[in-house]
Amino acid sequence: MRSEKGVLGLPLNIEKGRVEMIHGSGGRASSQLFEEIILPAFDNPWLRKAGDQAVVEMAQGRWALSTDSFVVSPIFFPGGDIGSLAVHGTVNDLAMGGAQPRYLTVGLVIEEGFPLSDLARITQSLGSAAERCGVSVVAGDTKVVERGKGDGIFINTSGIGWIPRDIVLDPSAIRVGDILILSGSIGEHGAAVLAAREGGGLVTSLLSDSAPLHDAVQKLIASGPGLVCLRDPTRGGVATVLNEWARETGLVFEIEESRIPIRQEVRGISEILGIDPLYLANEGRFLAVCRPESADRLLSVLKSHPLGLAASQIGHVKAGDPTRPGGMVRMTTLMGGVRLVDWLLGDPLPRIC
Amino acid sequence: MRSEKGVLGLPLNIEKGRVEMIHGSGGRASSQLFEEIILPAFDNPWLRKAGDQAVVEMAQGRWALSTDSFVVSPIFFPGGDIGSLAVHGTVNDLAMGGAQPRYLTVGLVIEEGFPLSDLARITQSLGSAAERCGVSVVAGDTKVVERGKGDGIFINTSGIGWIPRDIVLDPSAIRVGDILILSGSIGEHGAAVLAAREGGGLVTSLLSDSAPLHDAVQKLIASGPGLVCLRDPTRGGVATVLNEWARETGLVFEIEESRIPIRQEVRGISEILGIDPLYLANEGRFLAVCRPESADRLLSVLKSHPLGLAASQIGHVKAGDPTRPGGMVRMTTLMGGVRLVDWLLGDPLPRIC
Repeated sequence: MRSEKGVLGLPLNIEKGRVEMIHGSGGRASSQLFEEIILPAFDNPWLRKAGDQAVVEMAQGRWALSTDSFVVSPIFFPGGDIGSLAVHGTVNDLAMGGAQPRYLTVGLVIEEGFPLSDLARITQSLGSAAERCGVSVVAGDTKVVERGKGDGIFINTSGIGWIPRDIVLDPSAIRVGDILILSGSIGEHGAAVLAAREGGGLVTSLLSDSAPLHDAVQKLIASGPGLVCLRDPTRGGVATVLNEWARETGLVFEIEESRIPIRQEVRGISEILGIDPLYLANEGRFLAVCRPESADRLLSVLKSHPLGLAASQIGHVKAGDPTRPGGMVRMTTLMGGVRLVDWLLGDPLPRIC
Repeated sequence: MRSEKGVLGLPLNIEKGRVEMIHGSGGRASSQLFEEIILPAFDNPWLRKAGDQAVVEMAQGRWALSTDSFVVSPIFFPGGDIGSLAVHGTVNDLAMGGAQPRYLTVGLVIEEGFPLSDLARITQSLGSAAERCGVSVVAGDTKVVERGKGDGIFINTSGIGWIPRDIVLDPSAIRVGDILILSGSIGEHGAAVLAAREGGGLVTSLLSDSAPLHDAVQKLIASGPGLVCLRDPTRGGVATVLNEWARETGLVFEIEESRIPIRQEVRGISEILGIDPLYLANEGRFLAVCRPESADRLLSVLKSHPLGLAASQIGHVKAGDPTRPGGMVRMTTLMGGVRLVDWLLGDPLPRIC
């Protein structure tokens, strides 16, 4: 029943065609875009129904819900693209709650004139990333805005994941003496996107660290107790997550610069751009707080996972300072000094995810 | 712990301030925007946690998932705004599956320079609409794009709703002889938005029909069996939904123009703009297919609901024509002729939702 072609009765010219306003009209052209480009990238029984909603069977218990819009520029960058990033970003938000990601929805806002070939490439990347993560894209929506009223493509992904009953990860449980673990080297996503944005000016072999973290998290959880909370340092980087936790608990988070893994290329790009890598976005790393007696076990489990090879114990939690009710983040530098790691000051790093 | 103010230590100037790139940085300015404008509009325990994900307790069974991005222009229109529309749109997508909407996520993509006062007005409208629908906004995300790379604000809402075990609404169950019911007068949302877009050129007292349909649907379901499927005629209007069902079933959908409720003002605007009101968007109406023996009961239940006062039995389903495997939609006109109601042809009606 779904064999009719678009307005002219012809299949879309994916190689040379562009998204037009009529592809957002909800009529036959919208339907053609869905069937010839979007559906093939995610084919599953829910999307094939193409109704207003997907119906899934869920188990009784605790579920994590999350949403994220992606506006990264450029949309293709070394190590990924906005499609795979949109999957990893939401999968990771679910994973940080201890959830096993199950279902995703995808909302596209496309600018008129966007190449159909780029749309096909991005939706395929999104579909492959979802498949690798074991999540099904069960519902979607596509809107088109006029030329100059968007920027190529923006993607929203919302997700839902199942949390085993006994897992509670919550920063309110952080205590003095807890240990801070970082799952890998920092700043590669931010540095790769910023380098790509500079174009030819900054040639590098650096790749984004964009990757799904749920498997590594599940292995940590399965190894035993002691994990207190997790957060992935995306926008605003490691410095921002630590400041959030400091503010939420009123405690002091002490880290050692020498224990923070960072690739030489990230350091180089940060110096050229005048950016502290602690504020650079990561899309495949997490920070964990754990009880001191579990730290060695958790670190060793993490180091045995492909995404945790460079994991490191980077610091610990100390009592708050009564004169600073909002807590603080302090770092012992490579030179042996101690400096405050504040919230991001100065220029923001826009459109990094 | 959440009392610190932004970069300058001052509260946001909601009356005169604007969204800046730094509000999308993920740092303290993002946090301030969240706490002073967004959180107050939706205050609930999940959002107050402000983590990467919300954790909800769900019952075992069937759940509906849906997502929708809203790019309506203008963002404020007679009878609503992009905030309330974003709630009604997703609530209605869930309702069309027979679901009771429970949780929403909200993703904002805001253009640099957008007035904070408009953001506050829209988030408050979104929050109030959610409250009236009995759904909790449990997770959200805000991104900022540079001036000229967006258009004020785009909103994605994704939702989840619980479906009572015995409810299955599916167009594949449509049979010859089934009756078509329309819940109210058509085209008011589309006509109101198009009139608002024309500015002073088209003065009218017409309001969008934007409204949540889940309550009316639940009352239909509770009244007994016989409901086959539902769909809300948003983008592309009543004509598009009927064409989708025709294509999905291969059957002929016959409607009578004289039975389709339409306000005089919608007819007038349609004539001025040269648009067939059957293609105008609705945001508070639905089409139902039901078994003939249940049609009178369902129509009377609907007519007793505030959103179904003008409900009407507009036609029925006939056997398919072997020469047209994709089915078709036919209408007996006011003049007594019969015409084919095709997919939307000609100019699309962009940014209507």
